[in-house]
Amino acid sequence: MYEGPVQDLIDELGRLPGVGPKSAQRIAFHLLGADPADITRLQDALQKVKDGVVFCEVCGNVSAESTCRICRDPRRDLSLICVVEEPKDVLAVERTREFKGRYHVLGGALDPLSGVGPDQLRIRQLLTRIGTEVNEIIIATDPNTEGEATATYLVRMLRDFPGLTVTRLASGLPMGGDLEFADELTLGRALSGRRSM
Amino acid sequence: MYEGPVQDLIDELGRLPGVGPKSAQRIAFHLLGADPADITRLQDALQKVKDGVVFCEVCGNVSAESTCRICRDPRRDLSLICVVEEPKDVLAVERTREFKGRYHVLGGALDPLSGVGPDQLRIRQLLTRIGTEVNEIIIATDPNTEGEATATYLVRMLRDFPGLTVTRLASGLPMGGDLEFADELTLGRALSGRRSM
Repeated sequence: MYEGPVQDLIDELGRLPGVGPKSAQRIAFHLLGADPADITRLQDALQKVKDGVVFCEVCGNVSAESTCRICRDPRRDLSLICVVEEPKDVLAVERTREFKGRYHVLGGALDPLSGVGPDQLRIRQLLTRIGTEVNEIIIATDPNTEGEATATYLVRMLRDFPGLTVTRLASGLPMGGDLEFADELTLGRALSGRRSM
Repeated sequence: MYEGPVQDLIDELGRLPGVGPKSAQRIAFHLLGADPADITRLQDALQKVKDGVVFCEVCGNVSAESTCRICRDPRRDLSLICVVEEPKDVLAVERTREFKGRYHVLGGALDPLSGVGPDQLRIRQLLTRIGTEVNEIIIATDPNTEGEATATYLVRMLRDFPGLTVTRLASGLPMGGDLEFADELTLGRALSGRRSM
């Protein structure tokens, strides 16, 4: 253990996700020798996040204003909503450049054991968004237990809306992957979801 | 890219050593949902390090007071000094529980290409520490190019002190390692440094 403030910084950094004791030590010694202006910028960035990040009133994504860039964009297709768990999933879908609709960020996935039920997610807000202009909801929750449970729950909530199509992202082999190394579940999904060509 | 302060925080975190864009994003979203008190503790720890960390006047290790815990400890053997590159090396040697002397932290290793010459290291301070009570200097710089060059330089500076023994940490096979996978240099050192048993 080091003496004084260096150890305090190592301890605090070590509490961050994905930062082990060795990385925390490395970062602390880097900061020890860093330009004080760099540390100030990091402190300011932390302060701004602590002061409260704005979330888009419509979709729930992180935003600089009350409505986010995507929801304000008039070129976006209002008839399509892609439902995702987290803001980082919005980024992932945006990177494909394949989706021109809008998003809805749930803020997580159903996980009753961790106390996350439908009321902890932005599901009610999703239902109030569905007006006459929305005709498809793409459910893009993660392909794991919680994400699948959330998708099933959403389908049940959404099926009574007349004229609304509810779709789910395809599961199957990842592109560039190797059939031999695919797990049974993924390969099973790829088989059952096979398409004619 | 996210909008507003979240992206600023991701950018700042991404500048830290060993923190890639994905980890920076993960840490930022963790902090977004964290207790503000946790963020405050991290900010305070940064502030204290920015305000200046105290280094031990004697050995140059990070310290809470003007002289560090080890240099103040009367049970430490004054006749032995272990010379290391960085404060983390002090910790590494301390963990062995094999060394009862004191340390001298150079603050790096000779690396002329990066502009680190003898004047950038705490070499002069080491020479002034050598009084009548010191009878052995153990050079524990890293076993790499810079560390070896530093060791060679130190040996040249120290050989004129009467009655002073200068030693170097043994190089050889790491314990728990596998002879088959040792690199040629390490195995060569292990051979030339073989001891009778």
